[in-house]
This record gives sequence, C-alpha cells and structure tokens, in this order.
Amino acid sequence: MKIIILGGKGYLGWPMSIDLALAGNQTIIIDNLIKSRMSRDSNVQPLFSNSFSNKLKIFNSQCNNKIISHNIDCCKYIHLSKIIRQTKPDAIIHFAEQASAPYSMKDYESSHFTIHNNIISTLNVLHAIKEFSPNTHLIKLGTMGEYGTPNIDIEEGWITIKHKNRKDKFLFPREASSLYHTSKILDTDLVWFYVRNYHLRVTDLMQGPVYGFETKAMRTNTKLFTNLYYDTVFGTVINRFIVQACCNEPLTIYGRGEQTRGYINLKDTIQCISLALKNKAKKGELKIYNQFTELLTVNQIADKVINAARKLNIKVNVRRIKNPRKEKEIHYYNIRNTGLKRLGLKSNLLTQKSIVDMMTHILNHIGKKTIKINNSYVKWT
Amino acid sequence: MKIIILGGKGYLGWPMSIDLALAGNQTIIIDNLIKSRMSRDSNVQPLFSNSFSNKLKIFNSQCNNKIISHNIDCCKYIHLSKIIRQTKPDAIIHFAEQASAPYSMKDYESSHFTIHNNIISTLNVLHAIKEFSPNTHLIKLGTMGEYGTPNIDIEEGWITIKHKNRKDKFLFPREASSLYHTSKILDTDLVWFYVRNYHLRVTDLMQGPVYGFETKAMRTNTKLFTNLYYDTVFGTVINRFIVQACCNEPLTIYGRGEQTRGYINLKDTIQCISLALKNKAKKGELKIYNQFTELLTVNQIADKVINAARKLNIKVNVRRIKNPRKEKEIHYYNIRNTGLKRLGLKSNLLTQKSIVDMMTHILNHIGKKTIKINNSYVKWT
Repeated sequence: MKIIILGGKGYLGWPMSIDLALAGNQTIIIDNLIKSRMSRDSNVQPLFSNSFSNKLKIFNSQCNNKIISHNIDCCKYIHLSKIIRQTKPDAIIHFAEQASAPYSMKDYESSHFTIHNNIISTLNVLHAIKEFSPNTHLIKLGTMGEYGTPNIDIEEGWITIKHKNRKDKFLFPREASSLYHTSKILDTDLVWFYVRNYHLRVTDLMQGPVYGFETKAMRTNTKLFTNLYYDTVFGTVINRFIVQACCNEPLTIYGRGEQTRGYINLKDTIQCISLALKNKAKKGELKIYNQFTELLTVNQIADKVINAARKLNIKVNVRRIKNPRKEKEIHYYNIRNTGLKRLGLKSNLLTQKSIVDMMTHILNHIGKKTIKINNSYVKWT
Repeated sequence: MKIIILGGKGYLGWPMSIDLALAGNQTIIIDNLIKSRMSRDSNVQPLFSNSFSNKLKIFNSQCNNKIISHNIDCCKYIHLSKIIRQTKPDAIIHFAEQASAPYSMKDYESSHFTIHNNIISTLNVLHAIKEFSPNTHLIKLGTMGEYGTPNIDIEEGWITIKHKNRKDKFLFPREASSLYHTSKILDTDLVWFYVRNYHLRVTDLMQGPVYGFETKAMRTNTKLFTNLYYDTVFGTVINRFIVQACCNEPLTIYGRGEQTRGYINLKDTIQCISLALKNKAKKGELKIYNQFTELLTVNQIADKVINAARKLNIKVNVRRIKNPRKEKEIHYYNIRNTGLKRLGLKSNLLTQKSIVDMMTHILNHIGKKTIKINNSYVKWT
C-alpha cells in the first residue's frame, strides 16, 4: 500500500512508519517537527534524544524499502493537498495533532495553537481527500478522553438513544476535561460531517494513554527508539512513573489516584492501526473503535511500577500531590472495546515483565547521562 | 449595561445595537465588515444598500446615546482582548460568524474561512472573557441547524440519556447538514468546555432562520433598515420568497418543499436576546434556548407569500428545482421551545399582514431601482 503518515516523526508516528516500511508499504512521512519546538519552549526534552534525521538515516541504511520524509505543515493546505493529489495514497494516518492536555491550557498562545493546529490540519486532510483522492482511507487518531467519564456505559463511538417512544442513532456524547481533548471532539464533528456529506472513508481510533517506547522493529538498534517524554507536559502517566522509578524519584500521584483510564502499549497501538488499515471503511462510513487494552487506576499503575522496581532492587515511594487537573477522582467507568479484538488484536498488557523490561532499557540508557525529572507541574486553571 | 456586539454591523447585529442604544445601554460595535467583502466576492448585494457608516451617522445624529464602533477582526486576539480588558462589559453578544451554509461549502477557501473564522473568533472571545472579564455574560448565537433533523424530539439544548439502567445528562446530540452548521456544533463544544472549566456565564441561543428587515426603532428612518440579502448564498428562504414575489419572479422551492424548520421574525430575535440579557447565566452555567416561534414547511411559506402577494394584486407562481442541498425532504421534526416563552417572549408570527407589510416596503424601495434576482444557485457538492 501507499501510505502517508501525518506527524510521522512523533512518539507514535515514527514506530508506525517503521512498521509500515518493514511490511513493504510505500511510506511517506509528513511532519514539520513542531513538537520539537514546543518541547524546547516548554523546557523539556525526550529521554532518547537521537534526532529524527539520524533515526531516518539509520533506518534507511538498514532497509531497502526507504521511508520518504517531507517537512510540511499540515495547516498549509496548498502543500498538503499537493502531495495528496500527486500521491493518491491508499491510506493516510493522521497523528499531526498537538496532544498534550496541560500544554493546551497553559496560556492563550498554546490554547490557540492547539485549536488551530488540530482543527485546521484535520479540515485540510479531509478537504484534500474529498477533492483529490476520495478513495483514500483516513485513519484518524481520536482519544478516549473525548468521552470523559460519564455515568453511563461508554459504547464504541455510537449510541442509540430512546427518547419519548422514538429512537435514533447518534455519535456517543462527548464531554472532555481538557482543551486538547475538546479539540478532538471538534475533530470528530468535522470528520463525521465530511464522511456523511462527501462519502469519505474514515476510521477513528479512540485511543487511551499510550506507554512504552520500543517495538520489535526498533530492537534492531536502540538508536531507533521513539521519543519518550516523561515530564508533566508531554509525558503520560505510565511512562512518567517508569522514568521516576528509574531515577529513584517518588511516583507523583495526582489527588486520590482513583482516576481510571483505558491504557495501551505502544506495540498494540501499531497493531490496532495495522488492523484498521486491513479493514478499510466503506464509502460514507465512519468506523469508530475504542483503542485500549486494560482499565487501570493511577494507584494500580503505581503499585505495578513499585513491584517491578523491587525486582531490580530499586525501592520507590509515592508522593501524593494536589491534583493539578480538573477531573473526577472517583467515577463510574465501563467501556466497550470489543471491536479491535474482533479484528484480531492480541493485547500486550502492563505486566511486571514489561515494566522490568522498559526499566532495564532506561537504566542502561541513563547510565550514560544524568537526567532531570521535571517537577514543575503546569497548573490547570 | 455596557454591551459589546461582535458583528454589530450585520443583519442581526445592527438592529440589536440600535435597540440596545435606544434602551440606554452603552453600546460598542466590533466588526471588520468581512460580510461586505464576501458578498462582493460572491457577486451579490443586499437590497437596501445604505452603507454602515451612513446608518451609524444617521442613528447617532438622532440619538443622544451614541453607538461606538471599532473595526476589529475578532480572530485577532490581541485587539479583541484589549477591548474586553479595557471595557469589562456586562455582556457580549456574539454575531461575528460566517453564517451562510452554501458559502461554507463553495470551495476550500470558503470552507477554511468558515471554520477558521467561526472557531477562532469564538475561542478568542471565550479566552478573553476568562482572562480579563470573567463576570461578563456571553450571549452566543447558535443555530437550530446544529440539531439537524433527528428522529426523536429535540429538547432545549440538553438531554438525559438512559442507557443500560444508568443515566446522565448531556448536550442534545448535534448532526448538521452543512459545514457552516457544523462549525456551530464545534462552537458549542468549545463554549461548553470553557463554561465547565473556567466557570464562565454563557447563554447559547439556538436560532432558526430569521426573516424581516425592520424593527420598531428602524421605522423612524427607512435608511436605517438592516441589510436584506435575498440571494441563494446569504438570503434565507422567507426573505428570498418575499423579494421574488415583489419582482414577479416564481418562488424557487428546493425539492419537495416539505422540509420543516423553526422560523423567527427579526423583531423576535431582538426580543429574545433582550430577554437573555435580563436573565444572566450563573457562573459555570450554560443556558440554552431554542429560538424560533413557528414551524413551517417551505411549501407552507410559499402559500403564505402567494396569498399575501394576491392582496397586492401580484400573481406569483412557484418553480420547483432539484434540491441543491443535502437534506432530508421528509422528516420527523418536533422541537421544544418553551424556555424563551417562559421568560416573556411575545411572538410576531408570519401573518398575511406581516408579509404584505414587508412587500410594501420593498416595493416602495425597488420602485426607485431595478434589482436583479440572483438565480445562480450554489451547487452543494
């Protein structure tokens, strides 16, 4: 297949691109490296700081099926649409969004950037597909955070509402707890309009927080590892706890720690997207899957990391801090996620072995340098 | 009260501004006249083409309580936020959105403009209120079109969903039939996030198509009449039919003409917004009202206009054309609109007298000039 990966230099985009290229697909990355600029501005950096151009050089030197990369801002329609028009890809995978909740609410500039970048990049890819490549299958990364934590069971994207003796089917109601997650709700509305009105083919993957930094393909050379953020702005909780444990820092739990989310291993993200690629949406169809493998509370994650660290003779504690996020700390959470399993997803869960494995990699790495744990929590006002 | 009207030069903004100034409010218009540019680009113009600066001059010469006007683009945060910071208004009324459905789907530029202008202007006003004037009551014009035509009764903004023996309250599901109407769904998601997260005070008025061009205040001088668009891009159906009848042109019905919508007289729009102003939302409250006074099919409107025209000895026919819009032509439509009536709304319905009255005004006006009915329908692809 011919596949364009928007945001292909990022945490998820890079391992996805490698995986697709190794499987023999013509793989084209589009990215403008804005995340590097954002993280510099936020005074944080990923743990494995091998530059993208180095990683690409290493990969392309090892693989006959070279990955092509273009430095393009998806908000510039003229550039994005040109490549879609010329390539007419079988699929586009859209990772090109600002995905940090704290960053999205830091100040006006970061809020504006989040809304503008996420909505306009999505509009542009939808419009370019409609105009120039209507058979392209768009695979869009959504987020479980769009649903929030409602008091009813969360279905897979849709719900049939019975009301006053009549019924109809709608998008499952969405109510998020950050501006970033809200931007993804706006995306969903926009995607669903383009699918209905212009008969596009879209799969929307409502993903939970991802953890991990390597896939089977990356093991050939640890310099290929994807960017691992472990700070409070761009890092997700499992990655942050694992790095904190490696540094003998206490695991910082926000509030009561009973917040439950659906988590997924990076390996399974790649698996899910590959399954979505194999199961193309029909014309005018918006497929929605809930993409996570296990429900965990923050306290459960902390326990798992503490126990795994003990195996490596590292003793870590927890530090409970006032929750900087506006979120329910105790809530109902029951979510359907059968769709991707039915397509064949084999889950990699957060086992002791997987945590020990990640910690070993990190400890080998930080043996060579000092890393700074960023404890300046962004205040969510 | 001190009130800022965003988009105060437009079809609704201008009569609202006059009304507020006459009632003794300090009235500040913010507008960048983008609509005039858009209509020039679309090769259409309003019927009463008195320029805004003339209208403002006439009004301010008649009224001691002068209206102040600033040429500001609401998408420029630095300018918009400065005025909100300096003014700290009691209320802001937000009309500053691109409101034409056909225009929103004409080409990439118009689609991008609609999404960018509507979302960023809304983000900017919300963010500026949060930062600089958190007690300001934002009155936001939504649209009944956000709901689309679902197969269940449409409630006033919210719905309690019972699902698998549990229940929760959500925004009423929204699924629109144009990109413009979809942009207002995006707005709603954004507004509701800012209200929940930052405790803003917002009233969202889900308005049906408006008709009419004069209010009591404007009768003092017909040169004060608001812009009346009657073309297929910016004109709404009742206004278009009335102008077509005045010109002895057939009334153009899209498809079967059984499409039902909730309509409202311009006078009642002003009344509704005044009622919303008097009933300030509480901190963290999003009030939503469905703002229309009667449900009519397109065929019913045509009949009413034909009968009224007969009173003026004008014989008009209808011409049925293939529906350029993607919309259900036969559909269920049952909507609650009790909220504004409970606040005291006295409806002005589409009576024979009201149509004859509007036609008389228009005939007096076009007696003096030739007008061109724009029959080049924008194809909604």
